[in-house]
Amino acid sequence: MSTNQQVILRERPTGWVAPEHFELIASPMPVPQDGEVLVRNHWLSLDPYMRSRISAAKSYAQGVEPGQLMVGGTVGEVIESRSERLAVGDTVLAATGWQQYAALPAKQALKIETTDVPVSAYLGVIGMPGITAWTGLMTICEPKAGETVVVDAASGAVGSVVGQLAKSLGCHVVGIAGGPAKCRYVIDELGFDACVDHKAVGFEQALDQAINQTASKGIDCLFENVGGDVFEALLPRMNTFGRVALCGMVSEFNRPPAAHYTLRAILINRLKVQGFIVSDRMDTWPEIRQALHQRVAAGQIKFRESVAHGLENAPAAFVGMLKGENFGKQLVKLTT
Amino acid sequence: MSTNQQVILRERPTGWVAPEHFELIASPMPVPQDGEVLVRNHWLSLDPYMRSRISAAKSYAQGVEPGQLMVGGTVGEVIESRSERLAVGDTVLAATGWQQYAALPAKQALKIETTDVPVSAYLGVIGMPGITAWTGLMTICEPKAGETVVVDAASGAVGSVVGQLAKSLGCHVVGIAGGPAKCRYVIDELGFDACVDHKAVGFEQALDQAINQTASKGIDCLFENVGGDVFEALLPRMNTFGRVALCGMVSEFNRPPAAHYTLRAILINRLKVQGFIVSDRMDTWPEIRQALHQRVAAGQIKFRESVAHGLENAPAAFVGMLKGENFGKQLVKLTT
Repeated sequence: MSTNQQVILRERPTGWVAPEHFELIASPMPVPQDGEVLVRNHWLSLDPYMRSRISAAKSYAQGVEPGQLMVGGTVGEVIESRSERLAVGDTVLAATGWQQYAALPAKQALKIETTDVPVSAYLGVIGMPGITAWTGLMTICEPKAGETVVVDAASGAVGSVVGQLAKSLGCHVVGIAGGPAKCRYVIDELGFDACVDHKAVGFEQALDQAINQTASKGIDCLFENVGGDVFEALLPRMNTFGRVALCGMVSEFNRPPAAHYTLRAILINRLKVQGFIVSDRMDTWPEIRQALHQRVAAGQIKFRESVAHGLENAPAAFVGMLKGENFGKQLVKLTT
Repeated sequence: MSTNQQVILRERPTGWVAPEHFELIASPMPVPQDGEVLVRNHWLSLDPYMRSRISAAKSYAQGVEPGQLMVGGTVGEVIESRSERLAVGDTVLAATGWQQYAALPAKQALKIETTDVPVSAYLGVIGMPGITAWTGLMTICEPKAGETVVVDAASGAVGSVVGQLAKSLGCHVVGIAGGPAKCRYVIDELGFDACVDHKAVGFEQALDQAINQTASKGIDCLFENVGGDVFEALLPRMNTFGRVALCGMVSEFNRPPAAHYTLRAILINRLKVQGFIVSDRMDTWPEIRQALHQRVAAGQIKFRESVAHGLENAPAAFVGMLKGENFGKQLVKLTT
């Protein structure tokens, strides 16, 4: 047992990933230094974020270069310790990548002392995916009892937690999943109110039926894990003032660049994109108008007007405005 | 003077609007009823939102049907009053549409008593466009001193106010406008730090130069009035945790439906779309993990795992996961 097995990235994929983009290699067994432990990994987590890591495009984290070890979360057993923090036999959570053995500073490993859940849960339901579900649902979607919450990839590590949490808050919860087996699991085992198979004929009709089971109809909260066609079917079904937690867009990698441009930029920069209509808050108008008025009267805010003359010229002025031919506020002077 | 002139919608446009989509008609002079006033309009406001009103697609307000009077804000003079609220000679702000005369309930007209700004300003800088600018900038963008704020349609009714307000907050303000005359106005008259001509060759290079004049570089706040290619150039230049107030998308109407699908749904439903990365808030993990743990241990949250065996099968499992072949959390078991 003097060698370590590792999976490295052989070459960057464009579009669908294939096993040929990776390579299994043998490398020397790592040797722990002072303060480090040697861990034998038992569990490697595979997660959609890895698709971003092997993409050439900018992401929010350092990418994996061809020839480098694939990154990933792992649960393993300490088999040699040069730190007082951890002892041989300890079970630890760490991010050691796609390999059998890893030497790492003991402080980069979280000791797992739990016995009431399987240790692999630290890579899933109580690990990064579960925490992702909690964070996005609670801090962005902020669902209220009675609202309709939709989550795609509903049987997955993130989606399954999103839906169960939302149910516990009293929401009407609809999952989207691929295939009847996953949908049955989502309803029968996880307790969602409905699950729609996005691979089935009549997806949109079934979706409408699922989200319209409540009096309010439509989607109040969307926890978006997938992107692509499913997202485009869900978005127009959102209710006014709905909240979308944009968590993942794994399906977008296989679409032409233009199709996922907007979504990707929103996600990787953690943007808040909020549509708004000024008339939603008519109560604020008098105060704002007064503040603007003061500044305009004081010459602190300048303005410019493009004036068309005569009602008969309104259509042409409107068309011109849409083409940007106006300069400042477009008006029509109706009187001479 | 016994007839009224009105502009009605003749037919709905698809793509670019043309004057032929409208028709100027003569109609009977309106007669005010009890509680109403007769107004002679002096000013009609033309605004980009009108493009939505004449579209067949769902919007946030009642559309204008072919044959109906075009909607719009107006400033006019009361020429007959059957209400104690207003007197003949009063100047009023109202939404009476594209017509010379209108009879309307006096309570639907706002009396303008200001003398230090022109009355037309009630349709622009201190009217709906100015209030739109204030609301979006202050409540969604929330710019801080030193941040870079970008606004497109910068010389327009909304954009000009956005930029001047942002300057007064100590921001680095970059406008986007069409043509050198508008850009000069934006810089010389309105006091923006820079303005980039989106019609000029080398737009993106000029944009980079304008937004990178500060130490922080990039765009912190985007006030988006236009959509389309300009938006797509701006979005990837947003800094992490940037804020986008999605106010308008007038250029999107002339693009193929797929291109503005996402943007439109976000805007008309006033969605908050927020990208997020769970590792931004590592400080919350221990508490969340504990909460999840309790629920999993208590059987309140269920989970499922797909397990591939052996590191050598990790690539295929990863590829399968990206195709949705996994069921629940995908793991690789590295040990037997």
